[in-house]
Amino acid sequence: MTTRGRFITLEGGEGAGKSTQARFVRDWLSEYGREVVLTREPGGSPLAEAIRGIVLGDWAEGVTASTEVLLMFAARAAHWHTTIAPALAAGRDVVCDRFVDSSYAYQSAGKGVAAAGLKALEKLAIDSHRPDLTLLLDIDPEEGLRRAQARGDENRFEQETLDFMRRVRDGFLARARAEPQRIRVIDAARDADAVSAEISAILAELPDSGA
Amino acid sequence: MTTRGRFITLEGGEGAGKSTQARFVRDWLSEYGREVVLTREPGGSPLAEAIRGIVLGDWAEGVTASTEVLLMFAARAAHWHTTIAPALAAGRDVVCDRFVDSSYAYQSAGKGVAAAGLKALEKLAIDSHRPDLTLLLDIDPEEGLRRAQARGDENRFEQETLDFMRRVRDGFLARARAEPQRIRVIDAARDADAVSAEISAILAELPDSGA
Repeated sequence: MTTRGRFITLEGGEGAGKSTQARFVRDWLSEYGREVVLTREPGGSPLAEAIRGIVLGDWAEGVTASTEVLLMFAARAAHWHTTIAPALAAGRDVVCDRFVDSSYAYQSAGKGVAAAGLKALEKLAIDSHRPDLTLLLDIDPEEGLRRAQARGDENRFEQETLDFMRRVRDGFLARARAEPQRIRVIDAARDADAVSAEISAILAELPDSGA
Repeated sequence: MTTRGRFITLEGGEGAGKSTQARFVRDWLSEYGREVVLTREPGGSPLAEAIRGIVLGDWAEGVTASTEVLLMFAARAAHWHTTIAPALAAGRDVVCDRFVDSSYAYQSAGKGVAAAGLKALEKLAIDSHRPDLTLLLDIDPEEGLRRAQARGDENRFEQETLDFMRRVRDGFLARARAEPQRIRVIDAARDADAVSAEISAILAELPDSGA
């Protein structure tokens, strides 16, 4: 019987280095002989990527926080069903750049959607499933925005104000305080190698890591 | 001060004649001097129409009931915010081909999504707003499907099985029993003129109908 794969998510604000570290996690796990699927949200299946195109689009009518969070969870439901759940069931590890914690941080802490509403969406989209490990790359929003802007690939979310990004950061940190076993807070203001080194140490603690 | 417009929805299974009767309602109200917005779901704003394109699309990965209902309510949130609420506030009547009752009938009664989940989505998308009047065009699914097929414009929903359509019909009728003041059940097996005549009589009872 195949052992279920591990589900590892990376979270954090803009410019925290999530995509770089997600690739690092993928490579680390691969070197230890795991089959790994690297994916990201919003997106991760053809249907979810189509929803991503809509949610990141620039709509003249605007996108309310309610519409946004419903689209995010619609994409997540498709992503879970099509990509994540089958991979885990087949024994592959899944590394995902953003997941449910981003919805709580951005749409709830950042934009005021009631957390109770998000819990209902979460139940609908992914039932009781949770990541086995979440790496929260924490960075001061001012520094994070500076890095994101230097990268030059801004989308609608990366044009938000500093105040908004502070609420998002607080939202992430509150999630980490509530679930310290699952969510590990990592100081992402350091250079990428130092961050990767700390992540290596955390991955080495994973049960059945192959190490 | 402008009096708020009336919000009238048409509901029912495939082939019940909703679109035809929605135009009839629009024309009836217009003749009485009302400004009327005729709209439909899923869709009704540029963003909501883009979501409609996704939800009615033919995806190789399939569309689970969870993804579908989240997309439906995302489209509804945009439709409400951009089209319906501003029209009602400006004193225009809004006639809408399908609304929340369709979600309860199709995704909950038809496909088994928990009604509690739908209530949470409804709260997120449209808060406590409800139609002033809902015309439920009730027809035997076998006859309705025959009519829809004769029309030749099947989409993903119109290819569902008869069993599914029976659950949908039961779902609509249960909603009508729970809210008999708002939802009026109309026998849609009769010819279109007879259905329109009954609808005229119901519209004439509306408060501030201009009659």
